Amino acid sequence: MPEPYLQTAIDEARRGLESGGVPIGSVLVHRGEIIGRGHNQRQQRGSAILHGEMDALENAGRLPAEVYRESVLYTTLSPCAMCSGAILLYGIPRVVVGENHTFMGEEALLRSRGVEVDVVDDPTCRQMMTQFITEHPEIWNEDIGEP
Amino acid sequence: MPEPYLQTAIDEARRGLESGGVPIGSVLVHRGEIIGRGHNQRQQRGSAILHGEMDALENAGRLPAEVYRESVLYTTLSPCAMCSGAILLYGIPRVVVGENHTFMGEEALLRSRGVEVDVVDDPTCRQMMTQFITEHPEIWNEDIGEP
Repeated sequence: MPEPYLQTAIDEARRGLESGGVPIGSVLVHRGEIIGRGHNQRQQRGSAILHGEMDALENAGRLPAEVYRESVLYTTLSPCAMCSGAILLYGIPRVVVGENHTFMGEEALLRSRGVEVDVVDDPTCRQMMTQFITEHPEIWNEDIGEP
Repeated sequence: MPEPYLQTAIDEARRGLESGGVPIGSVLVHRGEIIGRGHNQRQQRGSAILHGEMDALENAGRLPAEVYRESVLYTTLSPCAMCSGAILLYGIPRVVVGENHTFMGEEALLRSRGVEVDVVDDPTCRQMMTQFITEHPEIWNEDIGEP
């Protein structure tokens, strides 16, 4: 069983999948309390920017810098350049990643800027993404800016 | 006078200012046609992720990778890590920046990844941001994740 916060991110990914979307979920945790959660909204809301992590950050609402700097972001998939950039903008010091086999994000950039990146390699995260990419390659490519 | 696309980004910044927000605007231009425009929405929509560039990308809607790769993003202010990450995610090859005196974004990172970054140093862009930061330092600091 994944740890509880990652499990909540997985629950978000599954909600996304069940509503016809890309199965990536994310949770922002401040001092042990979930303050934001969300999932990829490309299909559901026609969004080009609401990746799972961005949706969690947006749902957390406006926060002072101090809160981000004491928070951990959980995400089912290795964060892309946009989501990694948001992590850097807000100085989130730690990211827990469900898996990075189906997509390798900007983990090296994050680490080079001092962010702790822990990759869990969770089988449920991998399975959901592997199946989605197989069934909907065109949506997935659009989501990561690939032709 | 700034070039027309930058002027449209400045118009967006001014709309943002007049509606009580951070005066940063952006325009996405594909083969000479404006396909998305927007401005910072922190104050107006309580958003943590709708910087000017992100708002322009969101308003452009879902696009195939090919369109981004033939587009130019105009922004009144040097793009932060999040917006630069979005530029990298979508492979936007060129960014025109109004000014980078009031805030230096991730121009070096963008250039290191092959993005052309042209800084105009437009006096209107500088003046709007200088005045806003002086009058609302707490909002500005929140917008860039500073305490």
